[in-house]
Amino acid sequence: MKKFINGIDSVLSESLDGLCVAHPDLLVAGPEHKFIRRAELKPGKVALISGGGSGHEPLHAGFVGQGMLDAACPGQVFTAPTPDQMMEAAEAVDGGAGLLFIVKNYEGDVMNFDMGREMSGRTIETVITNDDVAVEDSLYTTGRRGVAGTMIVEKIVGAAAERGMSLGELKALGDAVNEATRSMGVALTSCTVPAAGKPTFEIGDNEMEMGVGIHGEPGRRRVAMMSADAIAAELSEAICGDLGEAANGNAIVLLNGFGGTPAMELYLMFNAVKPLLEKHGARIARSLVGSYVTSLDMAGCSLTVSMASDEMLALWDDPVHTAALRWGV
Amino acid sequence: MKKFINGIDSVLSESLDGLCVAHPDLLVAGPEHKFIRRAELKPGKVALISGGGSGHEPLHAGFVGQGMLDAACPGQVFTAPTPDQMMEAAEAVDGGAGLLFIVKNYEGDVMNFDMGREMSGRTIETVITNDDVAVEDSLYTTGRRGVAGTMIVEKIVGAAAERGMSLGELKALGDAVNEATRSMGVALTSCTVPAAGKPTFEIGDNEMEMGVGIHGEPGRRRVAMMSADAIAAELSEAICGDLGEAANGNAIVLLNGFGGTPAMELYLMFNAVKPLLEKHGARIARSLVGSYVTSLDMAGCSLTVSMASDEMLALWDDPVHTAALRWGV
Repeated sequence: MKKFINGIDSVLSESLDGLCVAHPDLLVAGPEHKFIRRAELKPGKVALISGGGSGHEPLHAGFVGQGMLDAACPGQVFTAPTPDQMMEAAEAVDGGAGLLFIVKNYEGDVMNFDMGREMSGRTIETVITNDDVAVEDSLYTTGRRGVAGTMIVEKIVGAAAERGMSLGELKALGDAVNEATRSMGVALTSCTVPAAGKPTFEIGDNEMEMGVGIHGEPGRRRVAMMSADAIAAELSEAICGDLGEAANGNAIVLLNGFGGTPAMELYLMFNAVKPLLEKHGARIARSLVGSYVTSLDMAGCSLTVSMASDEMLALWDDPVHTAALRWGV
Repeated sequence: MKKFINGIDSVLSESLDGLCVAHPDLLVAGPEHKFIRRAELKPGKVALISGGGSGHEPLHAGFVGQGMLDAACPGQVFTAPTPDQMMEAAEAVDGGAGLLFIVKNYEGDVMNFDMGREMSGRTIETVITNDDVAVEDSLYTTGRRGVAGTMIVEKIVGAAAERGMSLGELKALGDAVNEATRSMGVALTSCTVPAAGKPTFEIGDNEMEMGVGIHGEPGRRRVAMMSADAIAAELSEAICGDLGEAANGNAIVLLNGFGGTPAMELYLMFNAVKPLLEKHGARIARSLVGSYVTSLDMAGCSLTVSMASDEMLALWDDPVHTAALRWGV
């Protein structure tokens, strides 16, 4: 294992410290790194909290800031945060208008966010994301996994919260965005969890994992390496097939890298995907290409398609100022 | 070799097409992808053109747009663009106030940009960047190599051009920013050039290349893997030692990933570097952490320190709207 680390036990805390010192105007770490919150809170606004296992950076702490999250609770690598983290984060950012948790659908995350909500005793609603069409029940989930589409939920609901929308409206909006969003990924290599010190899974020199999860968990099938066009076709078909008639309309499209794949290949994949989505009636109204929801150093990518109403597009365009996503400010 | 590609000959054109269709409001490709230019030109402004071998994305085409470059000329992977590319780009973006070429110091690039300038017959000045302190003369250079600091030159000079500064002033500013900027990198793995199909260099499971160039060319020495803190110390010492007394003051610090290293490790490295720079008297006035000047899929990172006057900081803060760098708009 070759990584930029000092010790396995301090990877997470040092990386979070680095994030905060690189963005001192934006971010503050809570005690013991239990959460990362906005440096400047906005009273009277519904507060948004997300989180989950680390190793998916910039998700979630990189999306804390104006127009997106108020706090993120980072668990250990690929491990759900503990309930006290969400309880303390809620206490730190509660602006008096209630809180919304945004949680990727993994059993540990869903359970611990729910315990955090109960322990907190505050007014909290939860949106659970489950955008991954690759598999139904899986290694860590009942139902579909929540993956890169989560950041689209966070952006759109974050903008709505900034505009002053109520907790009930935000919960409904978050569920609606999740419902309109589909993702699927593919891995060319495994990631390596620092504490494990070796790749999570074995994969041949000419193989890829189609439908891989963001922790390197199995997808639909192990197949021989294919051309970018053939990969794009399989991802697009899976997503548009699942959307059905709903694929007809404006879409926000995210071509996401898993951490070990450079921009050159991601843009090539975006180019391959575009005509395929359009064939299904999707109009790419907004696009985003980059490594936003990663799996440590895994080479691979995912495609996310979020069918967007005019309201969703307008909220997408609202100003955002976070470490990893910024425009309009 | 496992990459998202269709054919070796079409990697570059498909990736550039992907960049343009992902940012149709920002970017337009010239004929035969000879250059990528702003979709909307601004007459009366000095036009900035950069470029170089591809494989360093988002450099340079990802920095075309408001407040930065007017056009970028992408060569084949790790190969200088041809003189006709610069000549045609100059013709396409000349706004009547002269043109400035920003060129990384590699023999092929310097020669071809100069030939493009001569063939064009237009009023053109050139800033050559040579920020890499790792080695003096090297595989492809007489003198030091131009690396990640180039993007800092492009940002600051781009902002000054947008403000209406004259060609002579921009040339002087670009030289001054380059003069105030130092970089050094380290590779944990080799990159793989698509046309070669195999890693550029061999490197052991416990080795790294200290001072590596952005094409995978040799650096200072091949050493055993070290802790993040020890790596940060060697990079910081090399840079601050070279800056000498000049390291005392405000700095723009870029912790840059080479394409295969995820954000988690880059932020950890930023955290390691910060106190070391401060020990030398540098105050981190602005910071940027991410993969901006890459070497295809190489795992590794570089540190860039640019000592910044108040004017440079103000220009850094000016609005920028490109595919890879955006704020204030």
